[in-house]
Amino acid sequence: MKKLYLIGMGPGGPQYLTIQAIETLKRTNVFFMLEKEGQGKEELLQMRKDILTHYLGESGYRVVIATSPPRRMTAEGYKAGVKVWHDEKRALFERLLTQELDDGQSGALLLWGDPSIYDQTVSLIAELAASSAGELDFEIIPGITSVQMLTARHKIPMNRVGESITITTGRHAETCDPADLQNAVVMLDYNASFQRFKGQNMDVYWGGYLGCPDEVLVSGPIDEVTDDLLATKAAVRDKKGWLMDIYLLRRRETDDSKAS
Amino acid sequence: MKKLYLIGMGPGGPQYLTIQAIETLKRTNVFFMLEKEGQGKEELLQMRKDILTHYLGESGYRVVIATSPPRRMTAEGYKAGVKVWHDEKRALFERLLTQELDDGQSGALLLWGDPSIYDQTVSLIAELAASSAGELDFEIIPGITSVQMLTARHKIPMNRVGESITITTGRHAETCDPADLQNAVVMLDYNASFQRFKGQNMDVYWGGYLGCPDEVLVSGPIDEVTDDLLATKAAVRDKKGWLMDIYLLRRRETDDSKAS
Repeated sequence: MKKLYLIGMGPGGPQYLTIQAIETLKRTNVFFMLEKEGQGKEELLQMRKDILTHYLGESGYRVVIATSPPRRMTAEGYKAGVKVWHDEKRALFERLLTQELDDGQSGALLLWGDPSIYDQTVSLIAELAASSAGELDFEIIPGITSVQMLTARHKIPMNRVGESITITTGRHAETCDPADLQNAVVMLDYNASFQRFKGQNMDVYWGGYLGCPDEVLVSGPIDEVTDDLLATKAAVRDKKGWLMDIYLLRRRETDDSKAS
Repeated sequence: MKKLYLIGMGPGGPQYLTIQAIETLKRTNVFFMLEKEGQGKEELLQMRKDILTHYLGESGYRVVIATSPPRRMTAEGYKAGVKVWHDEKRALFERLLTQELDDGQSGALLLWGDPSIYDQTVSLIAELAASSAGELDFEIIPGITSVQMLTARHKIPMNRVGESITITTGRHAETCDPADLQNAVVMLDYNASFQRFKGQNMDVYWGGYLGCPDEVLVSGPIDEVTDDLLATKAAVRDKKGWLMDIYLLRRRETDDSKAS
């Protein structure tokens, strides 16, 4: 029997871990860290190592670093490309769990934010556990998401009275009818899709490197701050070589909607 | 100058607090706890007191308990009722900050889950800070939400590949077109509105008292588990006298949508 913890680390700094996450770190024999090729690789790896050093010291555990398979674009379209990518990632997890974790040991994957949000690791590990004939058990330890850091830093509620909250992707923001979004958090936007929402009477609340020492915030009416936001994004990406960001789009309430 | 922290406590147990939240507790002079009239009042108050005792011991801080104004239904409709309620709540906060917190002191509101989600405290305190001429500053400390506990306990991702996440209220689930919801977390549902989604090829993942010792989970196809879920809800509410619950509704992927 092997146990795998999917630990939500929160946005980056050690102070955002919960006591439950820290207690789980202390029960773990082997930490698996997946790194992605590209800018920021070393820094993102170091932040996770720093968390381990901060709470566990330098010894008494083993760290296994593996390269995450790159996301592929296939001729068969988006979902087919995702399937190939997930198959490769599942095979990597299976190999790591077989070769690097002994029977009776506990392993952990340190995941940014919360393991359940825009991260298919939960599904892939669930599939491996289901086909393991009881040899693999796993547990999810929730963590603070960048969505929560965004609203905390801007000192705003995630929703207004009676309003639903939508969390979506840059891919959706890039292709949807702008009139369809009222109040939406956009993650994984690589194409600055907030520009599509100009002239829509909307505000944007943007954050980069949230919860990290380089944190930067921009907010205001999209019609007024778009140029500033594009310049800020370009400047910080130029300086650090990579950028993790997220934003909330919020349509202003008209007098009509206030009265409804 | 007075400082107020809005601290996300997570779902209940002390293990769900972040290190940032615990460090903030230690900097706080006065803790404000709002209680609601009704069943569970004592238990919910005790859980917050237990968190303080757990991390701070019995002394060195002051606890101020106030009764939260009840939600009102007015003849003028939903939004008008909410406005009256918020006005009363803002006035209560103003009185507490004026009478119970000295200049130079730090106060804190201990809030369930995360302060930004379905809790208008952030907006009310922001209004008081804006009108305080620099005398009141506030800060939000994110906490683990029941949404995150729900997906962690059911070991499911919050969304499937490329899918948006909707977080909404029982009020919306009760009135929307059932065909409009694909993947939605429903909070604050007092009328078991999941029943409306029978015959819709949907699954439900339900949790009560998440993160508490009495935690209970039910999941499965809505068409099959509705009776069991209604019976479970009635039984646990009968036993404890109150219920805090949340659920996720998820439309099954058809072969069509898988191929798209």
